[in-house]
Amino acid sequence: MEHDLPQTLSLLTRTPAVLDALLRDLPEAWTLRSEGENTWSTFEVVGHLIHCERTDWMPRARIVLQFGESRPFEPLDRWGHIQESQGKSLAQLLDEFARLRSQNLGELRALNLRQEELELRGQHPAFGAVTLSELLATWAVHDLTHLHQISRVMAHQYRDAVGPWAAYVGVLQCAGHSSPS
Amino acid sequence: MEHDLPQTLSLLTRTPAVLDALLRDLPEAWTLRSEGENTWSTFEVVGHLIHCERTDWMPRARIVLQFGESRPFEPLDRWGHIQESQGKSLAQLLDEFARLRSQNLGELRALNLRQEELELRGQHPAFGAVTLSELLATWAVHDLTHLHQISRVMAHQYRDAVGPWAAYVGVLQCAGHSSPS
Repeated sequence: MEHDLPQTLSLLTRTPAVLDALLRDLPEAWTLRSEGENTWSTFEVVGHLIHCERTDWMPRARIVLQFGESRPFEPLDRWGHIQESQGKSLAQLLDEFARLRSQNLGELRALNLRQEELELRGQHPAFGAVTLSELLATWAVHDLTHLHQISRVMAHQYRDAVGPWAAYVGVLQCAGHSSPS
Repeated sequence: MEHDLPQTLSLLTRTPAVLDALLRDLPEAWTLRSEGENTWSTFEVVGHLIHCERTDWMPRARIVLQFGESRPFEPLDRWGHIQESQGKSLAQLLDEFARLRSQNLGELRALNLRQEELELRGQHPAFGAVTLSELLATWAVHDLTHLHQISRVMAHQYRDAVGPWAAYVGVLQCAGHSSPS
């Protein structure tokens, strides 16, 4: 389907509550373990979502609106969350994510974007021209990609515990797949 | 990690609230569309989770406890939810799932399973001997596999809307992968 801003907003609005329902007070065996070396734990994924709220979506939207294609976006630092998350609890990260998301969506709604603005183009540092509409659709899909990742990282912790079912449960067949956004 | 019943329970308890936060009152463009022919929409996934609450996890646990390996489990009908879900709204399915899950976990807690019971074996109709512990771990991973699927099915709806980001967002690279449980 085409990008539809109200539909994007309806999804983006829900993500903090989804992560809260899934993760708050969950035993750390689920949230602090990763899929192995150089992969993220659920804790780190939430840190990354916070980092993107600060540096990716709305900052890039503002660049499109102010500078169009003349000023490329800042590249996203995929490890930018590591230092920011240090010493924090998952509960603190969940609170911070909810606060930043709410603030960013307030700002997005206040822009009252019209169709012609959604069609404006910006410049991605890696793959060139993108529209504001594509950026906002990607914000929603990025939430889903990390929900997809969290469910996989958590399932991985029970890879042995499920015994012969390991060959049948889909999430355990999913190869990790992430790229810079 | 090894199967740990309190950790399994902590996850199983959360799933209805997670699905509620993600799906209740979400536009139908997100919830009624699938990934194409012979694939499930999010609505159908929730129907399947309900069907499993009725026919899979606790019924199989009872068979292990009562009959051990002498009586194989009933095969799961992967299309069993279709008729049961007909004419219902997603909100009704979410309510029904929450009610059945709560009832099943109440029953599971009341069993006060000891380690020697968790090691009891049952007979899976397709792949043979499984322990009660493996069955319960799989119940949790099955929740995660369908959360993983829902995030993928929803992301699929924006496959075109994200433009060049489609090549970079992990969830859009995930091939559907489900097998009978």
